[in-house]
Amino acid sequence: MFGGRSMMIGVDLGGTNIKAGAIFNSGKVLYKISKDTNPKRDKSQIIQDIIIIIEDIIKNTTNDINTIQSIGIGVPGVVQKGTGNILNCPNLNWHNVDLGDILKRHFMREIFIENDASLAGLAESVFGSTKGYKNSVFITLGTGIGAGIIIDGKIYSGSHGVGSEIGHMIVGENFYDCNCGRNGCLETFASATALIKYSQKRIDEGFIETELIHNYKDLDAKMIFDFAYKGDRLANEVLDRFYKYLTIGILSIYDILDPDAIAIGGGVSKAGDKLIERLKHEVSSRVFIKSIKYGEITLASLGNDAGIIGAAILGEIMKSH
Amino acid sequence: MFGGRSMMIGVDLGGTNIKAGAIFNSGKVLYKISKDTNPKRDKSQIIQDIIIIIEDIIKNTTNDINTIQSIGIGVPGVVQKGTGNILNCPNLNWHNVDLGDILKRHFMREIFIENDASLAGLAESVFGSTKGYKNSVFITLGTGIGAGIIIDGKIYSGSHGVGSEIGHMIVGENFYDCNCGRNGCLETFASATALIKYSQKRIDEGFIETELIHNYKDLDAKMIFDFAYKGDRLANEVLDRFYKYLTIGILSIYDILDPDAIAIGGGVSKAGDKLIERLKHEVSSRVFIKSIKYGEITLASLGNDAGIIGAAILGEIMKSH
Repeated sequence: MFGGRSMMIGVDLGGTNIKAGAIFNSGKVLYKISKDTNPKRDKSQIIQDIIIIIEDIIKNTTNDINTIQSIGIGVPGVVQKGTGNILNCPNLNWHNVDLGDILKRHFMREIFIENDASLAGLAESVFGSTKGYKNSVFITLGTGIGAGIIIDGKIYSGSHGVGSEIGHMIVGENFYDCNCGRNGCLETFASATALIKYSQKRIDEGFIETELIHNYKDLDAKMIFDFAYKGDRLANEVLDRFYKYLTIGILSIYDILDPDAIAIGGGVSKAGDKLIERLKHEVSSRVFIKSIKYGEITLASLGNDAGIIGAAILGEIMKSH
Repeated sequence: MFGGRSMMIGVDLGGTNIKAGAIFNSGKVLYKISKDTNPKRDKSQIIQDIIIIIEDIIKNTTNDINTIQSIGIGVPGVVQKGTGNILNCPNLNWHNVDLGDILKRHFMREIFIENDASLAGLAESVFGSTKGYKNSVFITLGTGIGAGIIIDGKIYSGSHGVGSEIGHMIVGENFYDCNCGRNGCLETFASATALIKYSQKRIDEGFIETELIHNYKDLDAKMIFDFAYKGDRLANEVLDRFYKYLTIGILSIYDILDPDAIAIGGGVSKAGDKLIERLKHEVSSRVFIKSIKYGEITLASLGNDAGIIGAAILGEIMKSH
């Protein structure tokens, strides 16, 4: 696998942008395109854009679809196994969209489609931070929390395609409900949104000795980390809570999946090594069996390209198993 | 697999009994032996008993070890992959015991060793309640909570053998700590022990209008279920709490593993269909994506024999993958 010189194409369909690129066997993205998703458009227009982007990449690289080893697409939602059709994609308001069928008819070949976080996890496990590990979990801490589970070198998405929704594990009771309608999802404690909401709540409650108060309306995760390092009491309280619940989430992943490694990506992971060091410290002091080595915790390394790379290589990974 | 007429032997090493039996391809246990474990003895004596039991089964069945297709052992702890040595087994106070090596030297062949709950899950998936499903989770609600995860027809125990510890997922904050040293483990909310401890706590706090008060010192799970069905207010409060947290645990299993089915076994599962019906109701109203079919929730069907059966077939399952 990845031994030949043929090219693979990956498309990362997001709520904001459609990003795509060509990769060769090194895993490097060599030709990259990005276009606004404009998600309020009719889905047929978005699908048409995906087709145009793929055709553009072919034209500007090998100019022959038969030399393309694999074409894959990552979507921010739940994909039906086998068909590549989309069951549910909240950011695009897509429900039961036959994306796989449409693309297959157009290109006269199979187009591999998967959840975007699963594909980022796959890319990390082939070319990135969890390379060489059989079992790994990729967690992306952004506006929400996404995750990809790799078992035995393959994406594991469960029997109905709804596995690896680690952001919706219930890890406590929270002061606001999750978008999914439940209370206590990890996403409501450890996403960027969660950091902001809890900061605002504490200010609303009267916590005023904090620099965060001056940025009440445009708080972001970076700001909270930066002020915490400067000693801001509220920012530190917010991060203490973030680490507490992210630790609980990781401990549950250890207890269920016991992976070789857990990679942390997404916007919040820009806090970098300090985040990883504190997480390692909190997790290692609370593992179930102290005498046993647990999975490594590490920063994801492929950044925004992970989704494109994972989509591009999906077909090859599936063929090789 | 299981096509021939050869016999398999399974041993279920528990903290109270060593149970063992011979099974043929039907999955039925045909020759069964049980002996007190007497766990305070030196481990060499317990291992000697395991050897005697296996030899006794051979003598009383085919009388020829070469006709035995497979010999397996389930242990209540963490087993090292590859060697079958025991890393940690709290009920027996065994740490780093080279059980696999000792038995291999004695019988001059590989003896397959795995965690007991994983083996019960395997047995359920081959002959019992989750038969025919690729991905399933078996949860045993007893003094503690054990679990077995079957992925793609095989036991999944993680990269270090400590996966499937579903009883130690943190699902809330509790009034007492878990034996593992952490707070909030599922086991402290949804095991038989948890039901008893919470009943006693509420009585200690002054809840006196309950029949449970007359059995304060010898409460058990069955009693709590029975009184709840008779309308006892405290028993119902205790069960409400039990269902609340067991539901959270199952939702997290759905969100991570999304299995085809979850089977509930162990002493608490004697509450039977009523337990399953209520659990199904609570879980289905709170799943992450309402429009998608999630895994079936069902009662385990093999009872106490599951451990013996799973141990007996382990070798064949491993060879067939």
